[in-house]
Amino acid sequence: MKRIVTVGGGTGSYTVLSGLKNLKNVSLTAIVSMADNGGSTRVLRDELGVLPPGDVRQCLVALSEHTDIVRKLMGYRFEDNGSLKGHSFGNIFLAALEKVTGDFSKGVEIASEILKVRGKVIPVTKNKAHLCINTTNGKKVKGQVEIDKINFCKNGLKRIFYDKKVLLNPKAKEAILKADYILIGPGNYYESLIPNLIVKGFHEAIKKTKAKIIIPVNLTNKKEHTKNWKVSNYVNETEKYLGRNADIVLINNEAPSQNQIKRYKLKEGDGVLVEDDFPDKRVVRRALISHKIIKYDKSDARQKYKSFIRHDSDKLAKCINDIIENIK
Amino acid sequence: MKRIVTVGGGTGSYTVLSGLKNLKNVSLTAIVSMADNGGSTRVLRDELGVLPPGDVRQCLVALSEHTDIVRKLMGYRFEDNGSLKGHSFGNIFLAALEKVTGDFSKGVEIASEILKVRGKVIPVTKNKAHLCINTTNGKKVKGQVEIDKINFCKNGLKRIFYDKKVLLNPKAKEAILKADYILIGPGNYYESLIPNLIVKGFHEAIKKTKAKIIIPVNLTNKKEHTKNWKVSNYVNETEKYLGRNADIVLINNEAPSQNQIKRYKLKEGDGVLVEDDFPDKRVVRRALISHKIIKYDKSDARQKYKSFIRHDSDKLAKCINDIIENIK
Repeated sequence: MKRIVTVGGGTGSYTVLSGLKNLKNVSLTAIVSMADNGGSTRVLRDELGVLPPGDVRQCLVALSEHTDIVRKLMGYRFEDNGSLKGHSFGNIFLAALEKVTGDFSKGVEIASEILKVRGKVIPVTKNKAHLCINTTNGKKVKGQVEIDKINFCKNGLKRIFYDKKVLLNPKAKEAILKADYILIGPGNYYESLIPNLIVKGFHEAIKKTKAKIIIPVNLTNKKEHTKNWKVSNYVNETEKYLGRNADIVLINNEAPSQNQIKRYKLKEGDGVLVEDDFPDKRVVRRALISHKIIKYDKSDARQKYKSFIRHDSDKLAKCINDIIENIK
Repeated sequence: MKRIVTVGGGTGSYTVLSGLKNLKNVSLTAIVSMADNGGSTRVLRDELGVLPPGDVRQCLVALSEHTDIVRKLMGYRFEDNGSLKGHSFGNIFLAALEKVTGDFSKGVEIASEILKVRGKVIPVTKNKAHLCINTTNGKKVKGQVEIDKINFCKNGLKRIFYDKKVLLNPKAKEAILKADYILIGPGNYYESLIPNLIVKGFHEAIKKTKAKIIIPVNLTNKKEHTKNWKVSNYVNETEKYLGRNADIVLINNEAPSQNQIKRYKLKEGDGVLVEDDFPDKRVVRRALISHKIIKYDKSDARQKYKSFIRHDSDKLAKCINDIIENIK
């Protein structure tokens, strides 16, 4: 039984976990960013003072072994005009559980039981805080959604941090220390991945663990955040935040279809991550792209910010399984 | 295995089901009124166009064999100011399930599975309609909450009906036909009990079934609806709507405490149901009162309309069990 820990946020973690769930002889733990402050999550944070449920919800759904209809329920977004409009049911569910238990982590445990989750979903921190950046030209920007809008080409990123003290959840620390493999990504780089790595205590836990670190490199660059990044930029930057080198770097070597590229450029602008001469022995190259056409969910106002070129969950899981089998 | 069907609505059905759940060798089905249009339920009906979830939620919680925390979650009411204020989580849960499945009854089935419900909860109808009354002085009043405010002493009740065609849910019909015992009540008389009995098809099903009809007579009279009623009024009126005589009439013979009476008078005005010389061989008399002090739930604006003198779930269940054991 190999212990795999994933580190990330919403759609990226959903994708990788949906595949890993089907592997045998692995135990899964998802460590999830608590930086989200957009959409339904923002309203719940502001009105109820709860931790952001959106990313956790996606991981729970990915690992749920309940019926399709229950998984669909968790992702259901109220469309009718009125007090619930735009809210995701799953977010309300997690917010109510936090209120009833008085502890978001405890609420996530109960949600996991109700949803028959295979594995564990752990918020990276129990502290409520907002993600912030300082730019090289002296701006301070607070909030994940607000940071999403900042063009790092014009306003270079100087520092990314939280507005309050944010400590690593002891259960996340334990999972990192006991892990055999830790996957950093995929996911929205500065909004889902890095917010985990900068939590106080994460760095130290990563240094101590004997786990192999795997970086599944993103398929695309994020509009105005990682423009023109090559694989080497991605890996080097991640290792800087990790304070440690990765053991394995997973690179996709399959081209997206013209249709996917066209759509991606249209929505995101900066295109697909380019592989440079990254001459590393740690690299594993595989065809990892999903060719499913992602449908636009009109009820989710934030859909347009999400990537339209994604990993194929099964291809990614198979690749990770092969790595585990060969290395052991 | 005896098949027991309860007919009622919110608090009354919750009380009787909470006790019956612990009996062995019985199968339970709760048939639930769909007339509610108040509080959180009203908002969900108006905004989302769903069937009223409130009464069903209470029956699901009563029969749930899930953990206490999950049962508490279903009854949790959002208190913080904002879009969710006043909503019961369980109502949102059922509304979302109706949206996802496209069918309230199907949604209730899935909720039952999630909540590990012992038995079945069946909405009396799948039709969306509002309860109405005509008064003897020519008024028409629409909506359960609106009817609650009408003083039947001043405005005599002429007719109670729905504003649209309301057919008996085929699953409710099946449960009635297969039942060994059917409990009519306890519950808010004209707002929870009668709304079941006037559904088209109910009358016919009751005529056909070989089940014994048990009437657990309410403990109290409803303010301005059943003022000064005696047991005989209660039974005769119910039998008129049923179109058939009851087989057993359960009457409480235990006095409420002075504290309970005082509190009840304060809130409700009309006091405790009086037993007259109801000389019927069908009568079973028992001590059935709960002496628990009901706490006022500040987050539920409708709490004040609910009875403060209630049946003791265990006493009532034991009494019904004795009836089953002796009659069989």
